[in-house]
Amino acid sequence: MPKPESEIVPHNLENTLALLARTPAALDALLRHLPEIWTHRDEGENTWTVAGVVAHLVDADVVNWMPRAKHILEFADTRPFEPFNRVGGEVRNKDKSLPQLLDEFARLRAENLAALRAFNLQPRDLERRGLHPALGAVTLSQLLAAWAAHDLTHLHQIARIMAGQYREAVGPWSRFLGVLQCAGHSAPA
Amino acid sequence: MPKPESEIVPHNLENTLALLARTPAALDALLRHLPEIWTHRDEGENTWTVAGVVAHLVDADVVNWMPRAKHILEFADTRPFEPFNRVGGEVRNKDKSLPQLLDEFARLRAENLAALRAFNLQPRDLERRGLHPALGAVTLSQLLAAWAAHDLTHLHQIARIMAGQYREAVGPWSRFLGVLQCAGHSAPA
Repeated sequence: MPKPESEIVPHNLENTLALLARTPAALDALLRHLPEIWTHRDEGENTWTVAGVVAHLVDADVVNWMPRAKHILEFADTRPFEPFNRVGGEVRNKDKSLPQLLDEFARLRAENLAALRAFNLQPRDLERRGLHPALGAVTLSQLLAAWAAHDLTHLHQIARIMAGQYREAVGPWSRFLGVLQCAGHSAPA
Repeated sequence: MPKPESEIVPHNLENTLALLARTPAALDALLRHLPEIWTHRDEGENTWTVAGVVAHLVDADVVNWMPRAKHILEFADTRPFEPFNRVGGEVRNKDKSLPQLLDEFARLRAENLAALRAFNLQPRDLERRGLHPALGAVTLSQLLAAWAAHDLTHLHQIARIMAGQYREAVGPWSRFLGVLQCAGHSAPA
């Protein structure tokens, strides 16, 4: 029997690492050399393409998650994290092709996870507190869990962007396809 | 510049085949040997686990999409398709492990796409009409586009089921994670 969601799962570092390690290969298998109709079209004005989402994931692996983990280990909550610019990936990665972005994501993620393992984090480290510029008090455990869930939020978005390109092509099937009812769930700025 | 969604994409068989061909490898890279917290937990009562979703995809490749494509080519709209039982996958695949399901999905999908290519479908074939037991008149083109979008609706669901397991673990980050605001978009029964 599947376990009900109401049984809350405590954060477990190995579960988080297992997921974080798989995202680059999953996106590679899904996206590399796919026709541009799937990867280079957006959901309308001020929305991202799939390639843009991958650029954001690359950027977040450079400037967000690991620097913040190190920040907590070094400064705890004595000073807040640098704010993360969600559109930085578009700017910093605008000249890269999707295959280049997928290569870079795989390389960065592997390096980040090796560095994270080298910290040899203990339960008391995971409870260390940091200070998020918008969210306030957070723990290292929450940061690492959010990194994994951030991969999933963008996988969810990628599936929605892609499916939206076939909104007309599927004809009457659109009412049976839940992803086409998803209006997007953008985070507040 | 990305193309706006408002430019409607006409259905193109090669785009559909390209996507259908990638889904099994993408799910394999994401899910194989992942800890069961991600793959064997559901979203609450009467909801699916990730493994259950893969069982459904296997089942749909056996009893739904290709049989219906053949049905259109043979009978056009002179008789409706057999109804598709969405929970058939649970019943028929209940004793299979997730790695077995992933293997089976890859094999079935490759066989189905080889058979589909062997039909050598021409534009006039894609316009052939069929009769869906609930949706009424549909075309072969719409059926094939819906097959691809069905993969994406379940990828979207898989990302949501997985992220939901970390709803508590991410702490205050939950408000920045769009996937955690997605209430699911189940199709009507």
